[in-house]
Amino acid sequence: MQTVHIGVSAPYDVLVGPGLLSECGARMREAVGLCRVAIVSDSTVDALCGDPVERSLRDAGYDALRCVFPAGERNKTLATLGGILEFLAENHLTRADVVVALGGGVTGDMAGFAAAVYMRGIRFVQLPTTLLAAVDASVGGKTAVDLAAGKNLAGAFHQPSLVLTDVDVLRALPQTLLSDGAAEIIKHGVLADAELFARMCEPDWTREMETIVARNVAIKCDVVVADERENGARQLLNLGHTFGHAVEKCSGYAMSHGQSVAVGMVIAAGAAGNEDVCRAIIAANRNCGLPVTAPYSAKTLAEAALSDKKRRGGLVTLVLPERIGRCRLEKVEVSRLEKYFQKGISMAEAVS
Amino acid sequence: MQTVHIGVSAPYDVLVGPGLLSECGARMREAVGLCRVAIVSDSTVDALCGDPVERSLRDAGYDALRCVFPAGERNKTLATLGGILEFLAENHLTRADVVVALGGGVTGDMAGFAAAVYMRGIRFVQLPTTLLAAVDASVGGKTAVDLAAGKNLAGAFHQPSLVLTDVDVLRALPQTLLSDGAAEIIKHGVLADAELFARMCEPDWTREMETIVARNVAIKCDVVVADERENGARQLLNLGHTFGHAVEKCSGYAMSHGQSVAVGMVIAAGAAGNEDVCRAIIAANRNCGLPVTAPYSAKTLAEAALSDKKRRGGLVTLVLPERIGRCRLEKVEVSRLEKYFQKGISMAEAVS
Repeated sequence: MQTVHIGVSAPYDVLVGPGLLSECGARMREAVGLCRVAIVSDSTVDALCGDPVERSLRDAGYDALRCVFPAGERNKTLATLGGILEFLAENHLTRADVVVALGGGVTGDMAGFAAAVYMRGIRFVQLPTTLLAAVDASVGGKTAVDLAAGKNLAGAFHQPSLVLTDVDVLRALPQTLLSDGAAEIIKHGVLADAELFARMCEPDWTREMETIVARNVAIKCDVVVADERENGARQLLNLGHTFGHAVEKCSGYAMSHGQSVAVGMVIAAGAAGNEDVCRAIIAANRNCGLPVTAPYSAKTLAEAALSDKKRRGGLVTLVLPERIGRCRLEKVEVSRLEKYFQKGISMAEAVS
Repeated sequence: MQTVHIGVSAPYDVLVGPGLLSECGARMREAVGLCRVAIVSDSTVDALCGDPVERSLRDAGYDALRCVFPAGERNKTLATLGGILEFLAENHLTRADVVVALGGGVTGDMAGFAAAVYMRGIRFVQLPTTLLAAVDASVGGKTAVDLAAGKNLAGAFHQPSLVLTDVDVLRALPQTLLSDGAAEIIKHGVLADAELFARMCEPDWTREMETIVARNVAIKCDVVVADERENGARQLLNLGHTFGHAVEKCSGYAMSHGQSVAVGMVIAAGAAGNEDVCRAIIAANRNCGLPVTAPYSAKTLAEAALSDKKRRGGLVTLVLPERIGRCRLEKVEVSRLEKYFQKGISMAEAVS
């Protein structure tokens, strides 16, 4: 098992290892002490993991309750949040008690948000069950729900007290869920770690799951902590996102976030005029079952990108790879964004 | 005009004076700069104050929008919050923009909560239009909505960037709204300021509105700031609340919060065995149009108090007046609470 200490203002540990779901009770006792616990998960994850988690918590002496909401990103709403909050209130959870977020990104975002606002903030523990949640959502403290007008528009910063990532659960994931997480891992490799990137080009990369997840958590932690000192570094985590969000939007969200970011990174490398990096990202994407192109024109994509809430005003900050392991931030006029898309798409087509 | 500087972790000023609603644009420019502004208020306050506030903001160069929800405490819900959040999102407010909470406690709580979570937190400015909101809700940073299971169960700590209290608006309030605020002012007097308390026993106390409001804000600020250092001092603000919440509950919320706290303070003074203080509070309450007794038995009230969420566990902390201007905290076994009610009610009946 590996432990990554997240040294943000309210520090906590991320434990990554086998069998952690069925050990969660004992691990939680060390980190948060005995109290009452509400296990929040969606219907799919509850059916697969709810029983062992509840059993482990009860064996460790916890009074554990289960709060289940219907699976699916479309349920990441204020209405579902309200259901979770009423569950906590009806069961008389107090400020001393803990919410356990058992599931993927949607569950972590929503259960974390519920913990952030219930009685103006109680503690929560994350048990990520998707690779994407394990490498992305478990660091940074961002929680949210979607509004009708856009994704993640209501939320809070709320740090977990503990994150337990069971790599046995991650290894058993279906290919599409592994791919979604792989896109973020490739991103972290392009940003900061050529060795991590190289692993993602190997056919049996999932064998090293524990090391890969722990390394990703450490990389994201470094960036997030750096951003507490110097404003801006965190924008590096948007690699592939400006281009990727446009792809995701044009697909009508038929393409997943991971698939879209994967394509976005290829376009970013192309836009940077960096043929070797573009070729390398294409190889990593293919190895992990991720797409490398999308059937939209530069004009269509640029328009989609500009309608995004974050891109009002005259400049947009692009993250452009210089080499595998190093990227730079570049501010460009929004009027020039289409040219960057065009350059990126042309190179991607040329080398793919 | 008087200015009270609130030295919490994110400091801000509370300005108290005449004509501040129609000067709000210029005052806001000094404090938060130019940006887009969403004025959130209920249907009653919007009809009375919405136009002058919008005009002042526009004259100062603001792009001002109005978001109106139906008046009434029963609308302090997640559903109404969702409506405000969708309004902000549909109108593309960004992290640089500001929510203006124009209204009483319900509006401040809900607009403040919306500002706390919209895009994970944007700034807000409070324009309290009730005396209670001016002396209570404008300091402390507590925002919330009610859940079906109880009041104020979901919320956030979020400090305003500026509070503008227009005493002309307060002086024009109907008697019931003045009384609600007066109960909190009498409370602050009993806690910390015999001179303030004495003012509330004078028939024309509303003439000194500016001084009274500014003094109340300063007293509450002292207590809130002290609580950042030594845990517990903030509990003093619960004077009259343990007894008062029980009264409020037994009345089926037909009695207002202010009326209930007024009766609660009389019972608290009686429970402390302090006849002079009990008599003085009764006099102040009567002067301000507040009740001094309620037709419920000690047993009924104690049961209502014990079903309250905050009173689980073996001890309840009572705030007991020692003299006007000084109170003490006393932890008592919940099993003895009925005796305190009995003692308080008996003395109240004897001296009233």
